Amino acid sequence: MKKLDETSIIEIFQKGLGKKKFESEDVEVFNLGKNKIVAKTDTLVQSTDIPSKMKLSDAARKSIVACVSDFASKGVKPSYGMISINLPNTISRSKINEIVSGFRKASKEFNISILGGDTNGGKEIVFNVCLFGIVDKIVSRRNSKKKDLIFVTGPFGYTAAGLNMILGKKRGKPDFVKKSINSVIKPKPRLNFGIKNKKYFSSSMDSSDGLSTTLNEMAKQSKNKFIITKIPASKDLENFVKAHKLNLNNFVFNGGEEYEFVFTASQNHKKTIVKNAKLLKIPIIEIGFVTSGKGVYLKNDNNLVQLQDKGWKHFK
Amino acid sequence: MKKLDETSIIEIFQKGLGKKKFESEDVEVFNLGKNKIVAKTDTLVQSTDIPSKMKLSDAARKSIVACVSDFASKGVKPSYGMISINLPNTISRSKINEIVSGFRKASKEFNISILGGDTNGGKEIVFNVCLFGIVDKIVSRRNSKKKDLIFVTGPFGYTAAGLNMILGKKRGKPDFVKKSINSVIKPKPRLNFGIKNKKYFSSSMDSSDGLSTTLNEMAKQSKNKFIITKIPASKDLENFVKAHKLNLNNFVFNGGEEYEFVFTASQNHKKTIVKNAKLLKIPIIEIGFVTSGKGVYLKNDNNLVQLQDKGWKHFK
Repeated sequence: MKKLDETSIIEIFQKGLGKKKFESEDVEVFNLGKNKIVAKTDTLVQSTDIPSKMKLSDAARKSIVACVSDFASKGVKPSYGMISINLPNTISRSKINEIVSGFRKASKEFNISILGGDTNGGKEIVFNVCLFGIVDKIVSRRNSKKKDLIFVTGPFGYTAAGLNMILGKKRGKPDFVKKSINSVIKPKPRLNFGIKNKKYFSSSMDSSDGLSTTLNEMAKQSKNKFIITKIPASKDLENFVKAHKLNLNNFVFNGGEEYEFVFTASQNHKKTIVKNAKLLKIPIIEIGFVTSGKGVYLKNDNNLVQLQDKGWKHFK
Repeated sequence: MKKLDETSIIEIFQKGLGKKKFESEDVEVFNLGKNKIVAKTDTLVQSTDIPSKMKLSDAARKSIVACVSDFASKGVKPSYGMISINLPNTISRSKINEIVSGFRKASKEFNISILGGDTNGGKEIVFNVCLFGIVDKIVSRRNSKKKDLIFVTGPFGYTAAGLNMILGKKRGKPDFVKKSINSVIKPKPRLNFGIKNKKYFSSSMDSSDGLSTTLNEMAKQSKNKFIITKIPASKDLENFVKAHKLNLNNFVFNGGEEYEFVFTASQNHKKTIVKNAKLLKIPIIEIGFVTSGKGVYLKNDNNLVQLQDKGWKHFK
């Protein structure tokens, strides 16, 4: 039997639940009383998302980071959270304390008040986080304009390398190993940068499903072509990839879980954005520009090569 | 190693996350902008909560019902929902369609707009639902007054009998079997009754963790004694229990998952509440009264026997 991929499953749900729009957003926005509420839910599943060597405190924190990263990309501060937890009935008190400490850490780090949630038995550990904030208007995925510049909030590919290392595969120099592993177990979403610069973004999207997926989705939704002129890889990743004869593009564009975001902005705002990024110590990288047409293309000298959506999908 | 029960686990989380109040509520209430938001999350886990003979459409609907029932007990209309789903990667398209149809059914039945959610791989099916509404003030668990009457929104014990039947154990007369099984697979929360009568309730609580748990929690939080003068069992349950030499109180007070609720109200409101219940065809039952003291007691003739909290707990 052919396995269903995540896109097909989501489509079945969207059609079945009578959604008119098939263009997805990073967060849900809805009116409740006099306010626009932003909400986002994300789930971390032990067998799929938590490498066995990862501490449960880091996993718990990361389940909040995953949602925070979506809020960051939309320029919205999450204020409240609810947490649902499934635990196998053999779990020890010390493991539970580890989990709690991870949630506490994240709640302080991002100033999110945890309202409550529920605890359940189950075959494996599952953390489900739901965060809320209010907003006037979010930055959408779909509004890039022709001639806009394309930026990312940091280098890509560390997570794919880090996951390899955690799974006991290829390793590199100590500093690179540390950076790579930390990108997996202690990701840092760019919340302040998103909140403080959203007014300069024409469009934006969290990149945690993979950079190729994100770029393709933004290009598709805005009905424009994205030309990538610079691969956002650090020198140490390039060296690692070369030393092990691996494919750099695969690490950078198809790894996923970076918890960075992609944004587009008019050239007029570039100076301000770059200045703000320096002040906040966010290593933003200009990677290309928007033009008319469709699809995402990598520019090498004068060759354009299409960049397919090969980001990480569940159920594949 | 001693297993932790759900109460201990929740306490570890509450302490760890810096909650000051240890008195729990059915829903979370928080201020966002100019509104009070009500939110509730609930999780249905395949290995724990979904009997193998239950259709996935019924399980999906029930995961929404579980939250709706909490809103019902607080007299609040849920307006929006988000759904997170874990699915094993072997699941078929037809099973997914079943799940979607259950969510669609519930969303129509309770007029809840499903905003979105996320899908994940995992070892077993998990449905996590989060519902939202707005409110001025909820009916709390803690405000019963001395001399108030205690009511339940329907008879108890069908679910414990129904679960026995689904698991292939004791059966009774066809009509009773149908009622019992339906109470498990197609529970009907009392949303309209809760919304329309909340102004008459001094306190209320969803009873899905079991009637004995609910009564003890309400008595404890309001620092009053609850005297139960009538066991809310239907005649056919009494007959079934007698025929199989089972313990009626165990079925009624400790089964759980009824998705009814308990409320207290001043004697002055009794007439109105009974009239409204008749109009809405809700089979409310007056089961006792509130007095000074503490604990919950069953009154048999002139004997008072303490009713311990023996409702259903995860991890036990």
